[in-house]
Amino acid sequence: MKFNNINVRISPSAKIGKGVKIGDNTVIYDNVEIGDNSIVCNDCVIGEPLNEYYFNSDYINSVTIIGRGALIRSHSIIYSGCTIGDSFSSGHRITVREYTKIGNDCRLGTLDDLQGYLEIGNNCWLHSNVHIGQKSHIGNFVFIYPYVVFTNDPTPPSDVCIGPTVDDFSQIAVHSLLLPGVHIGKHCLVGAGTVVTKDIASYKLVLGNPGKVIKDVRDIKDRVTGESHYPWPYRFSRGMPWEECGFDNWNKE
Amino acid sequence: MKFNNINVRISPSAKIGKGVKIGDNTVIYDNVEIGDNSIVCNDCVIGEPLNEYYFNSDYINSVTIIGRGALIRSHSIIYSGCTIGDSFSSGHRITVREYTKIGNDCRLGTLDDLQGYLEIGNNCWLHSNVHIGQKSHIGNFVFIYPYVVFTNDPTPPSDVCIGPTVDDFSQIAVHSLLLPGVHIGKHCLVGAGTVVTKDIASYKLVLGNPGKVIKDVRDIKDRVTGESHYPWPYRFSRGMPWEECGFDNWNKE
Amino acid sequence: MKFNNINVRISPSAKIGKGVKIGDNTVIYDNVEIGDNSIVCNDCVIGEPLNEYYFNSDYINSVTIIGRGALIRSHSIIYSGCTIGDSFSSGHRITVREYTKIGNDCRLGTLDDLQGYLEIGNNCWLHSNVHIGQKSHIGNFVFIYPYVVFTNDPTPPSDVCIGPTVDDFSQIAVHSLLLPGVHIGKHCLVGAGTVVTKDIASYKLVLGNPGKVIKDVRDIKDRVTGESHYPWPYRFSRGMPWEECGFDNWNKE
Repeated sequence: MKFNNINVRISPSAKIGKGVKIGDNTVIYDNVEIGDNSIVCNDCVIGEPLNEYYFNSDYINSVTIIGRGALIRSHSIIYSGCTIGDSFSSGHRITVREYTKIGNDCRLGTLDDLQGYLEIGNNCWLHSNVHIGQKSHIGNFVFIYPYVVFTNDPTPPSDVCIGPTVDDFSQIAVHSLLLPGVHIGKHCLVGAGTVVTKDIASYKLVLGNPGKVIKDVRDIKDRVTGESHYPWPYRFSRGMPWEECGFDNWNKE
Repeated sequence: MKFNNINVRISPSAKIGKGVKIGDNTVIYDNVEIGDNSIVCNDCVIGEPLNEYYFNSDYINSVTIIGRGALIRSHSIIYSGCTIGDSFSSGHRITVREYTKIGNDCRLGTLDDLQGYLEIGNNCWLHSNVHIGQKSHIGNFVFIYPYVVFTNDPTPPSDVCIGPTVDDFSQIAVHSLLLPGVHIGKHCLVGAGTVVTKDIASYKLVLGNPGKVIKDVRDIKDRVTGESHYPWPYRFSRGMPWEECGFDNWNKE
Repeated sequence: MKFNNINVRISPSAKIGKGVKIGDNTVIYDNVEIGDNSIVCNDCVIGEPLNEYYFNSDYINSVTIIGRGALIRSHSIIYSGCTIGDSFSSGHRITVREYTKIGNDCRLGTLDDLQGYLEIGNNCWLHSNVHIGQKSHIGNFVFIYPYVVFTNDPTPPSDVCIGPTVDDFSQIAVHSLLLPGVHIGKHCLVGAGTVVTKDIASYKLVLGNPGKVIKDVRDIKDRVTGESHYPWPYRFSRGMPWEECGFDNWNKE
């Protein structure tokens, strides 16, 4: 129903892999490369040109790379200069600005707004309506929940831009804010509605406005079982590379 | 100006009522039913297929029902399997995921993001940019204001999904968060920026992060008149079924 | 790549200036006026008709004015009755409701949602995903950061609508809320995640939920230099009218 080749425009310079499907009303701009078996749904824009395009007739679109096996849902905009790994999937209406680098097996949610010039590792899941400022660094297996904002200007307005860094396996819950330049270690849990104002060591639970370290995440006990859910990779494996073999075995490999 | 029948696609299996208007560039997928005199504006997608559609050639779209007299504004996406009652209206760019049930006389605001598998009663008004997680239960006459998030995973990430429940007549003000599984009684007022971490009895005002019960809503006095605005149905009737007869008379009926 | 004149519709009553570019799939409704050398990108709607349009065959679209040199990015919706000054620029998917007045040299970010019947002065920059309620008043050189919400109903739900007022040069940082009717003076800094519940005098730093006045912004010292960044116009001039001459000289003029 989606792939009727109606009102589709693909630049002659785009390189489209085998088995790729392009939805109706979608535009693929110059110098976009899409890997085999990827699906770009209807009403998307891939390789959106930068500001200079509007004012410089010599403008050349930077190379944009989407890996293999992507599923990009409708009404999404991915700018020129982005590099996205294999097995990417997205919700609707994402906006990914220029020179965003995203690893393999990542997911973006509906309405996500990535401001460009930022890096996301492998296996990260960003839920709906997340805003990631420029110069942010996100490791691997990081999950970010709705309405989280990564900021980067310590004295607004200024020309300083220092994004937050989040290390592997950390979880940033809904409506949290990361102030400019904060560094969150591995396996942290930033609770819902927290404003993170300073660096957080690995394995910490942070809560509140301003955020305070409450305890080690390994000491969070389940009310029913008395066991801890964290580190979460021992308890959650759906879609993760240790789904078949368990986290310890995967770690050894 | 909107209904020129340009680039409109309607599945042969869709059932379109009398007097229905469909805007330009809108797509109506398989097994959608739209009630009489409804308006679907331009650039909408009704009956958006589920994930399985992309990978299973035997995929069959679930029945999607939109009642009579709807006004769905432009760029909205409503998934397959949803059931929406009569006199529904929406802002622009709403996303309503699969198996969402919405009663009669409800309104959704621009950018609302309903994650599916959730229920909303009658006469609910959700303002702009509200995010309702799966398994949420919302009663009747509930109003939800911008940037409110309903969450459902108590130990992220996990496969547990327990949404919040909000009973009739409660008001959830801007930027509030409802943590997984909380139950908010009738006629409550959750103040702006509140993080609701536990159950709230009926008629309570809740404020802060974490949210604390401040007082009974009936004890909130207006600074000018000295009278209470709550329970609000005695003070507000625009668009409500007691608009003509008053809340007490409507209650008797 | 964007301006192929594909699926573009322009009302005969629209007045389009010299050198204006209109992107593919864009619609310009009745009584829209667009100034010289403006660019409206693809998939936009300018002059979106009001609710009455759907139900009244005598409906006449109000005049909508976009000044000279605008750059309106894709998928944006600007309602009938808006007046926007010269040198406007926007991100993607903005929604600007009816009778919004915006001065010269303003910028709106991706997903901004302006609810109409509000005023914004000159040289204001609203970043992504800002929500401005009706009856808000925003001065000149005001910067507003992502996920900020301006509210207007002191006792929800009611028919009272009193928007906040923000005076010249003030900065409203990410995820802040302005409660109905609050008045924020000149050169204030509302910190990230703040809920502003009462009026704030000029030059104040406000933080927290509920927001408390912490100090004079001129007393915020940079940790490295020991100097204050505020009043910011002495430290930041990119895109401002004092970029060439300095703030003091510009002030004299």
